[in-house]
Amino acid sequence: MVSKAGRGSISEALLKRFTAGDRAACARIISMIENDSANSADIMSGVYSRVGRAHRIGITGPPGAGKSTIVEKLAAAIRKEDKTVAIIAVDPTSPFSGGAILGDRIRMSSLFTDPGVFIRSMATRGSLGGLALKTKEVCDLLDAFGKDVIIIETVGVGQAELDVAQAAHTTLIVLVPESGDGIQAMKAGLMEIGDIYAVNKSDREGADRLVGEIEMMLEMRSQKNGWSPPVIKTTAIEGIGVDALVENINQHLGYLNRNNLLQGFMEENIRSEIKQLVQQRFSNALWDAQNLNHLLENLIIEVMNGRLSPGEASKRILECWIRECKKG
Amino acid sequence: MVSKAGRGSISEALLKRFTAGDRAACARIISMIENDSANSADIMSGVYSRVGRAHRIGITGPPGAGKSTIVEKLAAAIRKEDKTVAIIAVDPTSPFSGGAILGDRIRMSSLFTDPGVFIRSMATRGSLGGLALKTKEVCDLLDAFGKDVIIIETVGVGQAELDVAQAAHTTLIVLVPESGDGIQAMKAGLMEIGDIYAVNKSDREGADRLVGEIEMMLEMRSQKNGWSPPVIKTTAIEGIGVDALVENINQHLGYLNRNNLLQGFMEENIRSEIKQLVQQRFSNALWDAQNLNHLLENLIIEVMNGRLSPGEASKRILECWIRECKKG
Repeated sequence: MVSKAGRGSISEALLKRFTAGDRAACARIISMIENDSANSADIMSGVYSRVGRAHRIGITGPPGAGKSTIVEKLAAAIRKEDKTVAIIAVDPTSPFSGGAILGDRIRMSSLFTDPGVFIRSMATRGSLGGLALKTKEVCDLLDAFGKDVIIIETVGVGQAELDVAQAAHTTLIVLVPESGDGIQAMKAGLMEIGDIYAVNKSDREGADRLVGEIEMMLEMRSQKNGWSPPVIKTTAIEGIGVDALVENINQHLGYLNRNNLLQGFMEENIRSEIKQLVQQRFSNALWDAQNLNHLLENLIIEVMNGRLSPGEASKRILECWIRECKKG
Repeated sequence: MVSKAGRGSISEALLKRFTAGDRAACARIISMIENDSANSADIMSGVYSRVGRAHRIGITGPPGAGKSTIVEKLAAAIRKEDKTVAIIAVDPTSPFSGGAILGDRIRMSSLFTDPGVFIRSMATRGSLGGLALKTKEVCDLLDAFGKDVIIIETVGVGQAELDVAQAAHTTLIVLVPESGDGIQAMKAGLMEIGDIYAVNKSDREGADRLVGEIEMMLEMRSQKNGWSPPVIKTTAIEGIGVDALVENINQHLGYLNRNNLLQGFMEENIRSEIKQLVQQRFSNALWDAQNLNHLLENLIIEVMNGRLSPGEASKRILECWIRECKKG
C-alpha cells in the first residue's frame, strides 16, 4: 500500500509540473508511455481534457527525400508565427531520431536550443505493432502540453508508418526526382494519402516531370473531402518553397475548419485509438495470467508436432481465458 | 444449416484440390486468408500437419535496391536445383506486387510461366497491422502446399516489414551504393537483422566502400547465433554474384541445421503467431457484440468532450466484455 501511495504521489507531482509547462516532466511522461508504465494511463486521464487544440501535421516520403530538412525549416517558419512546435520523429533514418551520428544534428542546432520547440524521437525497433498507438498517445500528450503544432515525421514506405502520417490533420508527402518516379510513389500508397505534395530538391533534373506525374495521378484519385492537393516545388536546404508549404498547410487547416471536417476526423482517430487500447489492455491482462502462459507453451509443442494449427491453439487460449473470467 | 453444410463441403473440396497440388485452389485459399474468411481457420487446421519443410528466405532493403531482380535471379537459380519456389511480395514497390504498370513484369515472364514457381503479392494498404500475421499464415500455407523454398520480399524501411523479413529462416539484406551509406542502413535497423548482405549494382561507384562499412558494422554487432554474415557483391541484372548468394543461403540453412537452431526458431515463430491470432480472435469476438459497439460510440462522445481519456474508455469496454462473458 505504501508503495502504491508513493507511486500515486509521484504521478501527481509529475502532473503538476507537466501542467506548469515543465519540459522535463513532459519528456518523463513520454518515456512512461513508451515503457507501458502502469502510471501512464492515469496521467493520460489526468491531462485528457486539455487535448484537441494542436494542429497535427504528418510528414512522410521515402528515405533520403529530405523530410528532416523540411521539418526543420517548417518548424522554424511556424515559430516565426509565434506558435510553439513539437516534433516527433518516428522515421529511423531521420537525424532527429538517429542520434548524433556523423553530426547530423548539428544543422538542427537552432531548433534544439529554442524552448518553443520540443523534439522527441520514438524508438521503432522491437515495438511490434504498438508504435502507431504510442505515437498517438504521445501526440495527445504534447497537445495537452499546449504545443500549437505537432509535426510527426515517418518514413513513407512501411504500412504502420503510412498510417501514422495519415492520422494527422494534414499529411504532407515529400518526394524527390531521384527517389524514383511517381509510379513508385503510387505503388507505395503515397498518392492516396497526401493533402499536400512537396517535390523537394527541385533544382535537380526531372523535378518538373515529377510534378506533372503527381498532378496527373492526383486527378485520377478519388477526392479526399473535396480538397485538391497542391504540388509544391521546394529546395528545402536553401529554404526555397518553405513559405509556400506553410501557407498551404494553413490553408488546409482552414479548409478543414470551414467545412466542419475536424469533428469527424477526431472522432475517427479516437475510435481507432480506443480500439487499439482495448487490444493492448486485453493482451496485458491475458498474458499476466500464469496458467495461460503454461497453456500456450503446451500448445506450442502440439503445433510443432503438427497435431494442431496455430489458429486452433489461439481458439483454445481464448476459450480458457473466458472460462477464467467466469470463475473470477 | 444448409448454407453452413454447403460452406463445409466447399472447404473440403478445396482442401482436396489443394493437397492434390492444384495452384488455383492454393490461390483461392490465400484469398480467403487475406479476407479473414470464416473457413480459412478450418482450412489451416486441415493442412497444418504438412507445415515445416520449406526453407523461408526473407529479402529486404530500401526501395530501388534491386530486390525484385535478386528475387527473380534467385528463384531461377533455385529452380535449377530442381526445387520448387514460392514468392510472396509484401513490398508495395515490387514489380511482383505492383501489377503490370510500365511492363515491370515483362522481364519476369520466365518465372510467370514456370509451374514450379508460385508468385503472390500481399495487399499492403489498409491492412492495419494484420499484414505480418497474414503473411505468416500464407507462408504456412505455401509450405503445406509443398514448396521447397519460400521467398518473402518486403521493403526494409517499415517496422512491420522488417519484422516479416526477420521471421524467415534466412534474412538477406540488399543494399546499393546510392541507397545512402551504411550508416543509413544501420539507423533503419537493417544491420541488426541480416544473415547475408548483398551489395547490389556493385559495378557502380562506392560499392567497395559500402562493403567495407557493412563489414565494419557487422563486427560491432552482437552475433546472431554465432553466424558471421557474409557480404556479397552482386550485379543482379547481369546475374553476377547470384550463385554466391545461393551458395551462402544454402550454407546458412546448413548452419542452422547443424547447430539445432531451427527448432528454437520455429518455436519462437509459432509463439508469436498464436499470440497474434489470439488478439485477432478476441477483437473479432468483441466487436461482433452489438452492445459493445454501442458503448464504444457513447464513450467516443465522452472522450471528444474531454470528460474521459481513451485509456479510461478502453478499460470500461474490456470490463463490460468480461461482464458479458460471465453472463453468457
